[in-house]
Amino acid sequence: MLEHYMKWYEYSLEALGYTVVNARFFDGIRRIVILGMGGSGIVGDIIASIAAESEYPVYVYKDFYIPSNIIDGTTFVLSISYSGNTLETILSTKKALQHTKSVGVIASGGELIELAKRNGLPYIAIRSGLAPRSALPIMLVAAFNLLSTCGIELIAREELMKALDVLKNMDEAERTSRELFNFLKLSKLPLVVATLRYSALAVRIKNELNENSKIPVKVEILPELFHNDIVGWESAEFKDKALLVDSDLTYENKLIQFYAEYLKGLGIDTYILRLNGNVIERFLYGSLVIGITSIKLAQLRGLDPLQTKSISIYKQLLQELKEEIGRVAHSR
Amino acid sequence: MLEHYMKWYEYSLEALGYTVVNARFFDGIRRIVILGMGGSGIVGDIIASIAAESEYPVYVYKDFYIPSNIIDGTTFVLSISYSGNTLETILSTKKALQHTKSVGVIASGGELIELAKRNGLPYIAIRSGLAPRSALPIMLVAAFNLLSTCGIELIAREELMKALDVLKNMDEAERTSRELFNFLKLSKLPLVVATLRYSALAVRIKNELNENSKIPVKVEILPELFHNDIVGWESAEFKDKALLVDSDLTYENKLIQFYAEYLKGLGIDTYILRLNGNVIERFLYGSLVIGITSIKLAQLRGLDPLQTKSISIYKQLLQELKEEIGRVAHSR
Repeated sequence: MLEHYMKWYEYSLEALGYTVVNARFFDGIRRIVILGMGGSGIVGDIIASIAAESEYPVYVYKDFYIPSNIIDGTTFVLSISYSGNTLETILSTKKALQHTKSVGVIASGGELIELAKRNGLPYIAIRSGLAPRSALPIMLVAAFNLLSTCGIELIAREELMKALDVLKNMDEAERTSRELFNFLKLSKLPLVVATLRYSALAVRIKNELNENSKIPVKVEILPELFHNDIVGWESAEFKDKALLVDSDLTYENKLIQFYAEYLKGLGIDTYILRLNGNVIERFLYGSLVIGITSIKLAQLRGLDPLQTKSISIYKQLLQELKEEIGRVAHSR
Repeated sequence: MLEHYMKWYEYSLEALGYTVVNARFFDGIRRIVILGMGGSGIVGDIIASIAAESEYPVYVYKDFYIPSNIIDGTTFVLSISYSGNTLETILSTKKALQHTKSVGVIASGGELIELAKRNGLPYIAIRSGLAPRSALPIMLVAAFNLLSTCGIELIAREELMKALDVLKNMDEAERTSRELFNFLKLSKLPLVVATLRYSALAVRIKNELNENSKIPVKVEILPELFHNDIVGWESAEFKDKALLVDSDLTYENKLIQFYAEYLKGLGIDTYILRLNGNVIERFLYGSLVIGITSIKLAQLRGLDPLQTKSISIYKQLLQELKEEIGRVAHSR
C-alpha cells in the first residue's frame, strides 16, 4: 500500500488530465455542498478549508440524507465516493436530485457513476483499484477539475499545479514521517490538535491512524478547545501523546505553542508538526507525511494497513438495513 | 452550582418573557449564521440541529473571524456570548458587521451588548451571574425568541413551550443521572457516540464532563465513525467506557445498538442513554441529565465544578494577543 502514497505526485498529474463527462457551465451558483464519507468525505473537508478564501462557501454532509433546507437554485452539489457504492453518499445524492439538477459526481465506478450517466450529470471516472484513502490527491484534483469545468473556480489551476509540487519532496516527507513514527510508536490514544483552519488535516491524521495503524485518536480544534477540552486535562489520569499541527498564521501558532507547553506541563508528551507554504500545500504535504507514518506504524504493530475488518462488518449490516434506511432517508 | 441546573424550568419560563430590544422584522432572510464559543456556542449547535426541519439552514462558526463568503444579504447573524466578553465572538461579530446589518445579540452584558446598543442591533440582555454552561436553556429560549421576533420562526412558540416541560421531570432526571454517574465514575477518558442528528448533544456531554468533572472525553459521530474510527478500536490497547446517545429514528437506533455490541465485544463497557420525545425535548432533557451527572462526578473527585483554572490562563494569554489577533482577524 505504501507504494500508492509514493505515487501521489504521479497520480495527481494523471488526475489533472481527466475528462469531465457531461461537462457544462452552471450559472448563478453561490454555494457548494459536498457529500461523501470517510476517505472520500475528507476531500470535501479539505476543499471547504481551501475555499474559505474563495467566493463560494462549501458545506460538507456525512449522512444518509441531507436537510432539504440546504439546497436551493444557487447550490451546486458534488458527490464524492471512491468506490461509487457508498450507501450514505448514494442516498444523499438521490435526495439532492429531488431538489436540483446541479449535481456532479467523482467516483471510480459503481452506482454513483451509473446515476450520473442516467441523469446526464457531469462526472469524472477516476482511476480504480486503490484504497480510497490512498487516492486522496486524485479525488482532490478531480474535484477542483470538475468544479472549474462547471464554472466554479475555487482555486486557479496554476496555483493547484504549483501546490502539487510538494508531493515531489519524498525525501523530506520520509524524514518527517520517521520523526512522527518515533513520536507515535508507543501511543495508545494520541490527541491531535489543530486550529479550525486546519481541522480537516487533524481529522485526516486521525483517519489514517485509525484505518492504517488501527489506533484510536482524539481530535480537538482550537480556539474552541480552550473553552472546554483544556479543562478536561486538568486532573486527567490518562496521559499519552499530543500531536499539534501548526498554521500559516502567526497568532495561531502562538496559541498552538501555548497549548503544547500547557499539555507538556501536565506530563503529556507533545510534538508540533511544522508545515510550509499555503493552505493547500500544507494539506497535501501533511496528508502525505501521515500516510507514510501510519503505514509504518501498522507494520511495527504487525498489522495489515490495507485491511479494515470492522468496516466490512458495518457494510454487511447496511445490506440488511438498506431498504429501511432508504425509505426513511428519502422521506426526510 | 447544582441548584442552577435544578432551576432550568424556572429560568426557561423567565427567558420566554424577555424583551427583544431594537426588535424589528428582517425581510428576505434565507439562512442563519450563529457565532459563539463553548457553553454559548453549543446553543448554536443545538439550534442548527433543531432547525434542520425548518426552512432555514443554520451554520455555526467558532473562531476569531468568519470567512467572508458565508454572509450575503439573505443571512441573519446571531452572536451568543453569555458574558458578552468572549473575544472570539466579539471579533467575528465585528467582522460580520462589515458585511451586513442583519445581526442580533444574546448576552448578559459586556462588550457585545454595548456593540448591539451602538449599532441599533436587536438584542436580549439575559440574566447574569451564572456559569455560561448552566445558563443553557436561557440562551436557547432567548435565541428562539429573538429570531422569532425578527421574523425568523425556527420552531413554533407552542412547540417550544411544550418541550420545556421535560425540564420539570427532576425526579426522572436525577434517576437517570445516578445511573450515568455509576457508569462514568471510574472512567478516565470516555467515548461519547451519537448520530449526526444528535451530535450537538454528544458535544454537550463532552463539554460538561470537561468543565464540571475535569475529565477528557472523545466524541465520535455516526455514520462517519463507521468509515474510520471503528477500525481504530480493532487492536486498541486503551479501553475505557462508551456512552451512546439514542435517536428518535429507528434505523439510527439499530446502528447505535450495533456499535454498542461491537464495542462490548472488544471489552469496552457501554451504556446507551435512552431519551424520549422530539429533537428539542431530547436535547433539553439530555443536557439536564449530563449537567447533574457531571457535577456529581466533580464532587466524587473532590473538585470544584465551577472552577475552570485553565480557561483563566487562556484568557490571560488572550489579553496579550488581543491586538494582534484583532488586526489579523479584521483583515481576513
